[in-house]
Amino acid sequence: MKDTLFQHSTIGALMGGMFDGTLALNEVLTTNRTMGIGTLDGLNGELIIVDGTPFQVKVDGTVHEVDKRTKTPYVAVTNFEKEGEVAVTETLSSNQFKEKLKQAFSSVNTFQAVKVKGTFQKMHCRSVEKQEKPYPRLVDAAKDQVEFTRETVEGVLLGFYTPEIFGSIAVPEFHLHFLSDEHDFGGHVLDFTLEKGRVEWQTMETLEQHFPIKNNDFMEATIDYENLAEDIEEAE
Amino acid sequence: MKDTLFQHSTIGALMGGMFDGTLALNEVLTTNRTMGIGTLDGLNGELIIVDGTPFQVKVDGTVHEVDKRTKTPYVAVTNFEKEGEVAVTETLSSNQFKEKLKQAFSSVNTFQAVKVKGTFQKMHCRSVEKQEKPYPRLVDAAKDQVEFTRETVEGVLLGFYTPEIFGSIAVPEFHLHFLSDEHDFGGHVLDFTLEKGRVEWQTMETLEQHFPIKNNDFMEATIDYENLAEDIEEAE
Repeated sequence: MKDTLFQHSTIGALMGGMFDGTLALNEVLTTNRTMGIGTLDGLNGELIIVDGTPFQVKVDGTVHEVDKRTKTPYVAVTNFEKEGEVAVTETLSSNQFKEKLKQAFSSVNTFQAVKVKGTFQKMHCRSVEKQEKPYPRLVDAAKDQVEFTRETVEGVLLGFYTPEIFGSIAVPEFHLHFLSDEHDFGGHVLDFTLEKGRVEWQTMETLEQHFPIKNNDFMEATIDYENLAEDIEEAE
Repeated sequence: MKDTLFQHSTIGALMGGMFDGTLALNEVLTTNRTMGIGTLDGLNGELIIVDGTPFQVKVDGTVHEVDKRTKTPYVAVTNFEKEGEVAVTETLSSNQFKEKLKQAFSSVNTFQAVKVKGTFQKMHCRSVEKQEKPYPRLVDAAKDQVEFTRETVEGVLLGFYTPEIFGSIAVPEFHLHFLSDEHDFGGHVLDFTLEKGRVEWQTMETLEQHFPIKNNDFMEATIDYENLAEDIEEAE
């Protein structure tokens, strides 16, 4: 479907330690799902999908193209068809960038997809380490995250905007991952300074929320959602 | 799609007063969407869809088949294909019924569809009055709801179970509407006593969450979500 955000599992379940890969990238990446973000089996680094190709940013900072037989415990992906765009010619902090986009969006009551091709004066990312069972909660796993900063880097920044009331199933407001054009740097984005580039976005008409119904751990778990909002804020 | 719960708009938006009909029942009721619940343009009573036919329970308690050109501001609907069932032969209160079902479900971490054909020793329903613009918040509109109780009534009770973290976009846990076999009684269910009947359910693998992107009020609104959980508890 056009303008559909496909999400497998939820940030809430991921926060609760549901790290088992439950859907192969082969099944995720149809012709209508070519751009997205997520993680891999066991919380094995950060996943970014660019033009249908999945890349993993490992906890050591290295970037690898991912075998599509690999399974993901959490992924959000869409067809990306630019609806609006703006050329950035003046340096923007990540907060300025977000405010500008929220003004440009058709609505903040729907999901929005975001894609930026640009030069970043600074890009500050993180990745996470593959976990072993019994899995911890994500807020605890993220305490061992590794952060990376690069100055003057060209690449693609992409992800999604989530409306407030969906903030327990996806990261509230912006959830963005980055991949450098050289494929040597990236990850889950913490903050950045955008020097120049082209910012594009697209209104999502539909959220297709898919559940890992064949995974016994997910189906049978009593997931601990206490402090979910605070934990997402801390871990994401 | 099989095992898909289609939802147009959200309970959160409805609570915020987004009562304009934004999708015609003709567009809602495809061959794969034959059972469901919702309301009608302007919060005009309670909507229940049984075997593809939409019925409205007005605030005066009368039941009417609905013209499918009528628009809805909020609806949740599925194909219903029984996955599990249990025969009830001993009287159950609504709370006992809910506990029994939660035990029977494949999971409480996914949406579930529920359908009961039975005889109810007591059925306690409500309906709401059509609102005029500027629309109030639902919690205020619901203060004028009219309640109805009937003893020993046969009919169909149906709706959905919503997992905890989706509790701001759909009614948390059970959201059920009722229609008597005589089509002379029904509404949004407050509580009941089930005397005997057949209880059926189905795991929803996918939530297809659709947004009213052509409605300017929805797109441009700054929706007040303060006290959302408390207001849903009070109004629903």
